Amino acid sequence: MFRLEDGFQIDWGQLLGIVLEYGLKIIVLIIGLLIVYPLGKKIISKTLNRAQNNQKLSAARIQTLEKLLLNIFSYVIIFLFVVMFFGIIEQPIGPLLAGAGVVGLAIGFGAQGLVSDIVTGFFILLERQIDVGDYITVASYDGIVEEIGLRTTQIRGFDGTLHFIPNREINSVSNHSRGNMRALVDIGVSYDENIDQALGILNNVCNQFQKDERFIDGPNVIGVQEFGTTQIVLRIIGKTVNNEQWGAERDIRKAILEAFDEHDIKIPHLQNVYIQK
Amino acid sequence: MFRLEDGFQIDWGQLLGIVLEYGLKIIVLIIGLLIVYPLGKKIISKTLNRAQNNQKLSAARIQTLEKLLLNIFSYVIIFLFVVMFFGIIEQPIGPLLAGAGVVGLAIGFGAQGLVSDIVTGFFILLERQIDVGDYITVASYDGIVEEIGLRTTQIRGFDGTLHFIPNREINSVSNHSRGNMRALVDIGVSYDENIDQALGILNNVCNQFQKDERFIDGPNVIGVQEFGTTQIVLRIIGKTVNNEQWGAERDIRKAILEAFDEHDIKIPHLQNVYIQK
Amino acid sequence: MFRLEDGFQIDWGQLLGIVLEYGLKIIVLIIGLLIVYPLGKKIISKTLNRAQNNQKLSAARIQTLEKLLLNIFSYVIIFLFVVMFFGIIEQPIGPLLAGAGVVGLAIGFGAQGLVSDIVTGFFILLERQIDVGDYITVASYDGIVEEIGLRTTQIRGFDGTLHFIPNREINSVSNHSRGNMRALVDIGVSYDENIDQALGILNNVCNQFQKDERFIDGPNVIGVQEFGTTQIVLRIIGKTVNNEQWGAERDIRKAILEAFDEHDIKIPHLQNVYIQK
Amino acid sequence: MFRLEDGFQIDWGQLLGIVLEYGLKIIVLIIGLLIVYPLGKKIISKTLNRAQNNQKLSAARIQTLEKLLLNIFSYVIIFLFVVMFFGIIEQPIGPLLAGAGVVGLAIGFGAQGLVSDIVTGFFILLERQIDVGDYITVASYDGIVEEIGLRTTQIRGFDGTLHFIPNREINSVSNHSRGNMRALVDIGVSYDENIDQALGILNNVCNQFQKDERFIDGPNVIGVQEFGTTQIVLRIIGKTVNNEQWGAERDIRKAILEAFDEHDIKIPHLQNVYIQK
Amino acid sequence: MFRLEDGFQIDWGQLLGIVLEYGLKIIVLIIGLLIVYPLGKKIISKTLNRAQNNQKLSAARIQTLEKLLLNIFSYVIIFLFVVMFFGIIEQPIGPLLAGAGVVGLAIGFGAQGLVSDIVTGFFILLERQIDVGDYITVASYDGIVEEIGLRTTQIRGFDGTLHFIPNREINSVSNHSRGNMRALVDIGVSYDENIDQALGILNNVCNQFQKDERFIDGPNVIGVQEFGTTQIVLRIIGKTVNNEQWGAERDIRKAILEAFDEHDIKIPHLQNVYIQK
Amino acid sequence: MFRLEDGFQIDWGQLLGIVLEYGLKIIVLIIGLLIVYPLGKKIISKTLNRAQNNQKLSAARIQTLEKLLLNIFSYVIIFLFVVMFFGIIEQPIGPLLAGAGVVGLAIGFGAQGLVSDIVTGFFILLERQIDVGDYITVASYDGIVEEIGLRTTQIRGFDGTLHFIPNREINSVSNHSRGNMRALVDIGVSYDENIDQALGILNNVCNQFQKDERFIDGPNVIGVQEFGTTQIVLRIIGKTVNNEQWGAERDIRKAILEAFDEHDIKIPHLQNVYIQK
Amino acid sequence: MFRLEDGFQIDWGQLLGIVLEYGLKIIVLIIGLLIVYPLGKKIISKTLNRAQNNQKLSAARIQTLEKLLLNIFSYVIIFLFVVMFFGIIEQPIGPLLAGAGVVGLAIGFGAQGLVSDIVTGFFILLERQIDVGDYITVASYDGIVEEIGLRTTQIRGFDGTLHFIPNREINSVSNHSRGNMRALVDIGVSYDENIDQALGILNNVCNQFQKDERFIDGPNVIGVQEFGTTQIVLRIIGKTVNNEQWGAERDIRKAILEAFDEHDIKIPHLQNVYIQK
Repeated sequence: MFRLEDGFQIDWGQLLGIVLEYGLKIIVLIIGLLIVYPLGKKIISKTLNRAQNNQKLSAARIQTLEKLLLNIFSYVIIFLFVVMFFGIIEQPIGPLLAGAGVVGLAIGFGAQGLVSDIVTGFFILLERQIDVGDYITVASYDGIVEEIGLRTTQIRGFDGTLHFIPNREINSVSNHSRGNMRALVDIGVSYDENIDQALGILNNVCNQFQKDERFIDGPNVIGVQEFGTTQIVLRIIGKTVNNEQWGAERDIRKAILEAFDEHDIKIPHLQNVYIQK
Repeated sequence: MFRLEDGFQIDWGQLLGIVLEYGLKIIVLIIGLLIVYPLGKKIISKTLNRAQNNQKLSAARIQTLEKLLLNIFSYVIIFLFVVMFFGIIEQPIGPLLAGAGVVGLAIGFGAQGLVSDIVTGFFILLERQIDVGDYITVASYDGIVEEIGLRTTQIRGFDGTLHFIPNREINSVSNHSRGNMRALVDIGVSYDENIDQALGILNNVCNQFQKDERFIDGPNVIGVQEFGTTQIVLRIIGKTVNNEQWGAERDIRKAILEAFDEHDIKIPHLQNVYIQK
Repeated sequence: MFRLEDGFQIDWGQLLGIVLEYGLKIIVLIIGLLIVYPLGKKIISKTLNRAQNNQKLSAARIQTLEKLLLNIFSYVIIFLFVVMFFGIIEQPIGPLLAGAGVVGLAIGFGAQGLVSDIVTGFFILLERQIDVGDYITVASYDGIVEEIGLRTTQIRGFDGTLHFIPNREINSVSNHSRGNMRALVDIGVSYDENIDQALGILNNVCNQFQKDERFIDGPNVIGVQEFGTTQIVLRIIGKTVNNEQWGAERDIRKAILEAFDEHDIKIPHLQNVYIQK
Repeated sequence: MFRLEDGFQIDWGQLLGIVLEYGLKIIVLIIGLLIVYPLGKKIISKTLNRAQNNQKLSAARIQTLEKLLLNIFSYVIIFLFVVMFFGIIEQPIGPLLAGAGVVGLAIGFGAQGLVSDIVTGFFILLERQIDVGDYITVASYDGIVEEIGLRTTQIRGFDGTLHFIPNREINSVSNHSRGNMRALVDIGVSYDENIDQALGILNNVCNQFQKDERFIDGPNVIGVQEFGTTQIVLRIIGKTVNNEQWGAERDIRKAILEAFDEHDIKIPHLQNVYIQK
Repeated sequence: MFRLEDGFQIDWGQLLGIVLEYGLKIIVLIIGLLIVYPLGKKIISKTLNRAQNNQKLSAARIQTLEKLLLNIFSYVIIFLFVVMFFGIIEQPIGPLLAGAGVVGLAIGFGAQGLVSDIVTGFFILLERQIDVGDYITVASYDGIVEEIGLRTTQIRGFDGTLHFIPNREINSVSNHSRGNMRALVDIGVSYDENIDQALGILNNVCNQFQKDERFIDGPNVIGVQEFGTTQIVLRIIGKTVNNEQWGAERDIRKAILEAFDEHDIKIPHLQNVYIQK
Repeated sequence: MFRLEDGFQIDWGQLLGIVLEYGLKIIVLIIGLLIVYPLGKKIISKTLNRAQNNQKLSAARIQTLEKLLLNIFSYVIIFLFVVMFFGIIEQPIGPLLAGAGVVGLAIGFGAQGLVSDIVTGFFILLERQIDVGDYITVASYDGIVEEIGLRTTQIRGFDGTLHFIPNREINSVSNHSRGNMRALVDIGVSYDENIDQALGILNNVCNQFQKDERFIDGPNVIGVQEFGTTQIVLRIIGKTVNNEQWGAERDIRKAILEAFDEHDIKIPHLQNVYIQK
Repeated sequence: MFRLEDGFQIDWGQLLGIVLEYGLKIIVLIIGLLIVYPLGKKIISKTLNRAQNNQKLSAARIQTLEKLLLNIFSYVIIFLFVVMFFGIIEQPIGPLLAGAGVVGLAIGFGAQGLVSDIVTGFFILLERQIDVGDYITVASYDGIVEEIGLRTTQIRGFDGTLHFIPNREINSVSNHSRGNMRALVDIGVSYDENIDQALGILNNVCNQFQKDERFIDGPNVIGVQEFGTTQIVLRIIGKTVNNEQWGAERDIRKAILEAFDEHDIKIPHLQNVYIQK
């Protein structure tokens, strides 16, 4: 299998000739690519910018396409480089490696993962499951999409971390940026309070917010949600414009605190205990 | 394997001719599809709307079919485009790619996942496991079905998130919109209360709801369910019209609170502790 | 691989002829099936009803068989339709698809899952592991069997949800409707109570229930089960007729409460704490 | 692949002839089996009963063998029926199905699971890992073995549920009915008690039980097992006859309660708190 | 595939002849084995007993070897029986089964699991990972090794359960009977105690045990291990003779209790709360 | 398969000759490598150092490349050694091993894992997912990248542990060193405090930090985040320079403590309880 | 498949001859190995000891190599024994077993696992991931490496257990003995204490330890780490010499206790509650 019949009488002259001949070819190849690569990138960016001005495509879609096309372009360039490089280099070292079958194996393995990534990525793009700038959850990662690439999708988590996720790791996609979102506030009142009064006050709070333009479907008190261990839990639900649900929830919470304070209703909670020695 | 014998003497004239010839064909193809696609979509929608008026199919079923047919139509158009595109393009770049076997591999991989998705989707539709508008649980996602596609099913979660689930990820389906649902309320009473009195009051509450048309099988007190750490747990069970179980449970809870308040029965709970310094 | 040599000179006349010729055949096929399908279903139902009257098969078994045969019949009809449909359609589009090998792949994939479902289902039926109406646990779903099909088993959960479970997902089956069931009640008494007195009272309660016909093997006090953190746990065990265990347990619990109340034995529990400010 | 060349000119006379010819053969086959099956079952039962009287095989082993042989006999009958049935039916429908290769696939799939079940079951029996009536834990199910079959093992859980477990699901077997079992009682005493006195009392309790014939190796106090959050934990360990460990533990617990009560040693526990408003 | 050309004209005379001829051979075979099997077992046991007296092999090793050799011998006998049985039976039923390929399949499946078991078992024995009598943890089971067989390892759990574990389920082995073991006692003292005094008392306790011959490396106080929620945790660590760690720990715990009692240091713990109504 | 026809008549003279002949070759080979290896390492380091001085590559990138190139160089040297070694040794022992096919198997297995490692590593480097010195999370390990090798990536955990992770274990990469990070502080105030006053004080604290140059986007109070069991939770969020988020959070916390102290607002917490005996 | 044509006319004389002939060869083989094995072991140990004295290899590395070489030597001896044994034994029983293909299967299975173990082990050694004596975490086991073998790695857990881990089970390696380690102490102070005073005292404690030679990077107070439920958590971090981190942490804890005691700062904790009846 491994046969280097006379591995110690190397013809140094011949070796140098080979190195020079193939080295020159490789240098020409590299220079060629160094010219083509930045040129191609500039053309893609320019074309898409013009397209954005002329046509009706949304900015997010243009951004997705630009990042994707640049990514595809990079991979095509790399692919061409590898093919040409092996084309040049094949003659001298080919037989050695081919004998061991290692190159074929490596390409097979590499291609398998790559194709699997590309195919999944292709359907994600085709079905418009995500756009750059969407807030999504995939493969247990949460965040804003930064780039949808041929092989990996980059997501910026809320603590600033950048997650690189190979597309094949993506099964189901949860997109939090498609359509209206629900705002939900649970509030506990004591078993000793008058339940009708509490529901009345919460209804008033909700009415204030129904004029709020963040709400598509004004917040409503839906009733007694649960008998808790320390309190009766009442629930408020509303539908808001996308991405405004957290702010709206915070404002409802503050309004409830003020309304309850006014009517002297206490929210049950574990209290400080000060007992003297 | 990779042999670009004279990779540096490119005949630019010939290249331009090829690009022009095939470019024209591709543009004709794209224009053709841009005419056929919207036309086909309109025909499908119109036909189904007429079918809905004439026949006895339920609105949900019509909606499911419409979304599905549009989805299938899109994929057929894309499939035809890909086949024709490669038909046109095959001649010049075919041998290059075929040599590397990459295209065959990619189609194989893509087809495997796609067929797996389609077959699962086919049986879901054939056995009518879900319709658009059903509230279901599949693959650990909860929500209302928005679209059952050839490849993915879209579910709108209750917080507004849109989940894209590849059909192959769907094993068992739990459909919460088929038939009547159970309403269940657990209520704790103190170990110091008279258990018969408590059961009597709960029976009265249940009797009020038995006229409620949301209940198919009026709520009943089934007895002492559990000896809890702080309370004796009593259970009420009833059968309601689909989707009304949560509202009914909330109303029963409110009625119990009022009835217990009237008869001065306290629900045991951890209380606020106010001790002075 | 994909070769549409002159994809733009379509002979519209020939196309129309093909569509008419094959369209007619398909319409005849569909009409034929629309006659055969309801007829077959009626025959199956009638035959089984007569069998039920004449023979000793249990109603549950007849119901299982009826649902199963109807299900098998549907699949046979669908199978015949698909075979005939492809028989008709084979000539014009066959070569196109066969070239791509996609149909063969799809049938292979579909068949694999289908056969796996059928084989598992076959053994479930052969060994009579479940009947329609049984309360079972399979694949982490709980409920009453609604239908045992060729491909899927339908289970109605206790909250009213309908679960569709592909048979291949079913490994072990836990059938809760085969034979007598155990009723078990754990009751805690204080470390300060006289343990013999408590055991005596529980024995009396058990004696009351031993005449109860729901019990096959009268409930018995088996002794001190556990030293708990707040109480000594005593255990009562009995064997009841199937499906009556929950009702029996609830009645025992109520009887214990009343008996302990009579003899002034308190069940230890965390109490309300009312401390003034 | 699917070719029904003239699918609409069915020769009804020929069809009837085929149905009659093969129908008769199948009826003869069914009648034959209906005679052989009950006969075979009776012979197996009788033979084993006689064997039990004459020889030294334990009742449990005889019962295991009887259930197993009946089970094997059923499968052999079913196997012969299937083989003969397909032998009869092969001629007319064989080519159709054989063309699609579906039958071969189904047998392959069915056989794989079946053989895997049988091989595992064979070694379970060969190594006498379980007998009918043993209390075992396999594949996360607990209970008494009801039947060890060729394909499935049936276990009766303690709540009365019957579990059907395919043999291939059984990896490790935990048999709780082989040899003596351990009785273990943990008892907590306060950090304020005299530890030597407590150990002495427990020693006395243990001495009482050492004459108890359920104990192979009399219960012994082994010392201070753990410093708990509320108590010092002392441990008693003994070895009992199989299946008597739970009863023995319960009796030791009751004896300890009485002994501690006599010497006024309190078991620390969270107490009721009665504080007035 | 299944062809019983004239399945109903059975030649009963020929059948009887076959049964008699082969039945006799099988009976001779069974008798032969019934003589060889107990003889072989006795020879193995005797030989090993003599080896134990003459040579330096440890008793545990001898016991491991004896159980293993008996187990291998059983399997060789069974293997020979099966080979001879099929050798006898091959002629009449061979073609039938061979046609279906079922026997080949079964042997393949059986052999795969069996070989996997034997290979793993072989390395466990070769590397002397466990001996009969060792206390080990494998595949989430804990206990004393009872038998290391060709196919399964039997472990006796501490509650008396006998676990049968197929060797292939054994990945990593944790052997608790190789070398000295650690004794570790954590003891909490109040944040209000003098930490130096407490450490001093514990040092005295440790000094008592340093003469104890169970300790290889006398127990030492290593310092303040943790700031707990209710106490400062101090740690004592020592190295003991194998299997004596639990007893040593219990004795240290008792000695600490007595020493702390003498110096009036309290171990912080949640106390009984007795509050009057 | 294994045939040593006359394994006992070894020709010792011939054996010695072989050993001498091949031993010499191997020694020459080893000496050759011992000269080439350190030489190559020095050349790589020198070249990269010069590159760093002349060009614009960042120090982190140079460091990544240096460690990677040294690693690749080591593997190339080892690969050449193994190939040459087997080339020398092939003649005498080749047929023996080749017969058993063990070498081929080993190379196949080794190569599979190795190629899988290299391919994954290649894409991690190509897409610049990580650099030496980045703080990343991969495969459930957290830490600073120390070396990205051909086969393994080394990560230094924060407790000083060095983790060796084979590249194939790396799926998704979370890089915490790319761009600005979020600082988040949650602070609870009592339900009895004036919520507007508390928000005002926190706003003042945030204003102090907005001049802090660690903050890209000054910390802001975003409102009432949650109704807790003991407190109302208020949240402060800001964006900081990479790696400064923890220090910034700690300083905000200290500033809040001082501001609340000044205005006499108490943070609710469980207090010490001192009750006399 | 299994054909013993005349299994009952055994030629006892011929059998004896075979047994004698091959028995003698095997005995010679065993004796030969019993001489070679201890000789080889002694040579390996001696050579390495001399190497240790002459050269600069670390003791840990020498120990790793010695254990490894002895282990490899054992396996080579066993391999040779098995090959020779089967070479001797092949003639008489070869055809029998070869017919069944069992030997080939067994070797295949055995080799697969073995090669997988060796390859993983090879890279662990090549990349010097672990040495004998290192404290590591692999495959969820913690402990000191005792031996790195060809097939298994032995780790001594801290409670004295010896873990045998097949190399193929080892994916990522966490080595805790490479470089300096972090010492981390979290200390809680009451919300009522002056935070600046507490930080000042802790700074003084840290200054004491900065002269301590165990610390590479003296312990520093990094500030307010967390708002806890009962206390403000302050954190001290330092970098220590390997393996000294635990001792250093314990000493810092004791020093803090004494410093706080001196300045009368209390560490908040849940206190004993003594309430009279």
